[in-house]
Amino acid sequence: MALSKNKIQFIISLQKKKVRDEEGFFIIEGDKIVREYILSDNKIKTLIAKPEFISGLPADQTRKADEVIPVSYDELKKVSTLKTPHNAMAIVKIPEKSLNSPAVLKNLCIALDFIQDPGNLGTIIRAAAWFGLKDIVCSETCVDVYNPKVIQATMGAILNVNVHYTSLPEFLNQAIETGTQVYGTVLDGESIYSADLQKKGVILLGNESKGISEELVPLITRKIMIPKYTDAQNGIDSLNAGMAASIVFSEFARRDH
Amino acid sequence: MALSKNKIQFIISLQKKKVRDEEGFFIIEGDKIVREYILSDNKIKTLIAKPEFISGLPADQTRKADEVIPVSYDELKKVSTLKTPHNAMAIVKIPEKSLNSPAVLKNLCIALDFIQDPGNLGTIIRAAAWFGLKDIVCSETCVDVYNPKVIQATMGAILNVNVHYTSLPEFLNQAIETGTQVYGTVLDGESIYSADLQKKGVILLGNESKGISEELVPLITRKIMIPKYTDAQNGIDSLNAGMAASIVFSEFARRDH
Repeated sequence: MALSKNKIQFIISLQKKKVRDEEGFFIIEGDKIVREYILSDNKIKTLIAKPEFISGLPADQTRKADEVIPVSYDELKKVSTLKTPHNAMAIVKIPEKSLNSPAVLKNLCIALDFIQDPGNLGTIIRAAAWFGLKDIVCSETCVDVYNPKVIQATMGAILNVNVHYTSLPEFLNQAIETGTQVYGTVLDGESIYSADLQKKGVILLGNESKGISEELVPLITRKIMIPKYTDAQNGIDSLNAGMAASIVFSEFARRDH
Repeated sequence: MALSKNKIQFIISLQKKKVRDEEGFFIIEGDKIVREYILSDNKIKTLIAKPEFISGLPADQTRKADEVIPVSYDELKKVSTLKTPHNAMAIVKIPEKSLNSPAVLKNLCIALDFIQDPGNLGTIIRAAAWFGLKDIVCSETCVDVYNPKVIQATMGAILNVNVHYTSLPEFLNQAIETGTQVYGTVLDGESIYSADLQKKGVILLGNESKGISEELVPLITRKIMIPKYTDAQNGIDSLNAGMAASIVFSEFARRDH
């Protein structure tokens, strides 16, 4: 058994958001994420892997895949998004979920405004999962979470979070109406080290270079910021989005300690 | 004036560590870093930029470059390490510095063991600069800081730190001999949120997948770790090196608050 031309075309076409939206599938790639995806009881449409990867799985697990295609390295290379492919990739179903705002707002959650870089979104998801944050509400302008580069950067953490796309003004207004704090990272905010950070609320993070959109700033109920510990004038304008998110999540988590 | 063939070859050759070591020069690329490099009183060997970038600099500043070469976008593309080049790049001298361990050990500093990924090293430098950490002592096995991808990822923060390469066992032994704490991030460490973190000491961070080398573990005087706030078993093994570094630096900084 080998990859048919049709299958190759289909896999490559899933690199495009439009096709993913129409077909309802996305690609996961890499031994670790594919293995964890299978072990975590998710259904797989097509498992494409080297024979040694397949035989390394518990016997009953491959049954979770509708289709298992053993392939050579050269075949993997044809469909991989990576320069050096790993041993396994899979076509999986995009989970159907609708955003239940009242439920999401019962816990600490994340709102992302116009995060453009796939690596940043993936890193933020990885950090969120580490700190036990389950729900990530993205503006419609954020990069698509099923972009292969995002999935790659989550290093498997995508399995442990719910990512929603919605209108942020609407979502944040719902937060405010239910008396939930909206913590926004801005330049003139209160230091996260001394700010009153609660166990529930929305952590709103902005675009990599533009920060939080003008229209969303009035919806912040608590402005916070990460203090800079240097007087140097040059070369230190900002932290990147993933680093800033990690520090903020850590600071919320430690208050629970 | 335009880029000669020789110059083009020279610039491209500086992408190799061997050539950088022999010639003593490296490349900085991007409007922001080149501008800040010039404004921060550093000498530049060759400034290569679009005419509008050059004319946008304060008049007396271009004198800091031994040579100024106005170029077109197509010429920049020939020598750039980026898919889409910015408006400016420069050939600059590798600073000569020798590691003065006793001086470095008077403050909080960083030791990096076998950081391989250029993006991670750049991110760690960016976080270090933000939190006012000046000295970064790398094992000889770390990626070269003058690698264009590292420089790029520092986003200019390279101007505000001193990066040294040395034998880490030797450096850490010097720390221990002078009664300086060596804080090492390991899986079985004490939570950073409750650990006693002092204003001076060495923060030792390990390799992206292997952690701190076996030979260095006995030189850790305080084992620390970032607690994980989830019970999920799958997909959450670790934070990436840049995220972990940011969180640890932030935690040291906040104690000073």
